[in-house]
Amino acid sequence: MLIIGERINGMFRDIAKAIKDRDPVPVQEWARKQEDAGAHYLDINVGPGSTEVAEAMKWLVETTQEVTDLPLALDSTRYDAIEESLKLCKRPAMINSVPAEAAKMERVFTMAAEYNAEVIGLAMNEEGIPKDAESRIALAMELVATADAYGISPDRLFIDPLVLPCNVGQDHGPEVFETLRQVKLLSNPPPKTTVGLSNISQGTIDRELVNRTFAVMAMAAGLDSAIVDACDDELMAAIATARILLNMDIYCDSYVDVFRKSNK
Amino acid sequence: MLIIGERINGMFRDIAKAIKDRDPVPVQEWARKQEDAGAHYLDINVGPGSTEVAEAMKWLVETTQEVTDLPLALDSTRYDAIEESLKLCKRPAMINSVPAEAAKMERVFTMAAEYNAEVIGLAMNEEGIPKDAESRIALAMELVATADAYGISPDRLFIDPLVLPCNVGQDHGPEVFETLRQVKLLSNPPPKTTVGLSNISQGTIDRELVNRTFAVMAMAAGLDSAIVDACDDELMAAIATARILLNMDIYCDSYVDVFRKSNK
Repeated sequence: MLIIGERINGMFRDIAKAIKDRDPVPVQEWARKQEDAGAHYLDINVGPGSTEVAEAMKWLVETTQEVTDLPLALDSTRYDAIEESLKLCKRPAMINSVPAEAAKMERVFTMAAEYNAEVIGLAMNEEGIPKDAESRIALAMELVATADAYGISPDRLFIDPLVLPCNVGQDHGPEVFETLRQVKLLSNPPPKTTVGLSNISQGTIDRELVNRTFAVMAMAAGLDSAIVDACDDELMAAIATARILLNMDIYCDSYVDVFRKSNK
Repeated sequence: MLIIGERINGMFRDIAKAIKDRDPVPVQEWARKQEDAGAHYLDINVGPGSTEVAEAMKWLVETTQEVTDLPLALDSTRYDAIEESLKLCKRPAMINSVPAEAAKMERVFTMAAEYNAEVIGLAMNEEGIPKDAESRIALAMELVATADAYGISPDRLFIDPLVLPCNVGQDHGPEVFETLRQVKLLSNPPPKTTVGLSNISQGTIDRELVNRTFAVMAMAAGLDSAIVDACDDELMAAIATARILLNMDIYCDSYVDVFRKSNK
């Protein structure tokens, strides 16, 4: 299970302020904290408020890389900002994300091929997010086939079936699990899978309980990675336990600590 | 998710002593506590120490029924004790359990048909517990077919794929999940499924973490019921959350409390 740390994101007030003031301290603190907690990638998102997206993202990338060697997930709908940031990444990055729309796939997969980047492909298109697993799988197949045409192997593509808050889109839950299972049948090697975990718990009372329960259920359905709060200790313990139960790590009494340190 | 409360079991010291002294207080306290915590069935097991198994089980059944109307799961390898106890049960009971062995299936399914009891069928036979999902499914099919011959509908049969402690039989974990998925394809209506949850965590450091993680992963694979510690609040909260995420209960902010009260 690849942990993509969600915390360097301008939707959080401290990061928004750090971007505005070009203050590296909060960004670098979160980079270190997430790495210590067991993150394998760090998501980089300038947030909704930024006017100069490319400049802000480039600054976040450079600031983050001063304190960590973790690969970055460049998270934006502004592909110019992603492309400029890709040039600065010391390690192959992940592009977060592209929907199954022809023009956007052309733009993103071209960049991904040039910079050897992994890509998160969203199971949605111009018509929005489908309701059922079958339609999500059809969009995943478009993403796999198009990526392949640009020379991007399916196992460098992370399909995100798209998770809705369980208090408004409850019927999507079983469809997401089913999508995660079926994605693995699409190609050989199969695509990888990911979700933006915190979406599932938007507006619920005990968000951490909902997050960690969904995470391990999705892992049982084949989830490979997730964008999460890596500093949520109970979530990380649940994920480490799910890896044991799926026979992905060898049991030892300190398996939770071992999992946290596995990226070092 | 049907919760079968595990606590009235002579392997616990207080229940062993209560049986020996014919003291109803601890038994009735646990009956009430488990019902309050959300149990839908109460498991009744005289434990390993009892010499007069049938007498002890009958006493437990009567003592329990004085304070609760919950149906009972009669848990013994001594079928004479189960048969005598079935006569005392006020509500249709569950027989826990029968392996896929001809003579035992004949004995148990005959009783089950006579007393309108549900049956837990174990995916094992004289040769022990199989290692892989395919062999477990073959045994499940034997159980379904034999039950049918005695007029017992598949949906009154609970297939237990048999869970081993994750620190010794770690490779069984994924096979159990796969068995839970495939059991649902065996018949129409499909058999139900159950597990003895606490087995998964025998000998591990944080047993409750392992139990609740396994429980919700198994639910994602189709688990219908489990024999559990119904008084483990975090386990019950995780199970209630999994039901929300599987769209089995409607989300409301008090969904955990609603789940606990759902048997009343």
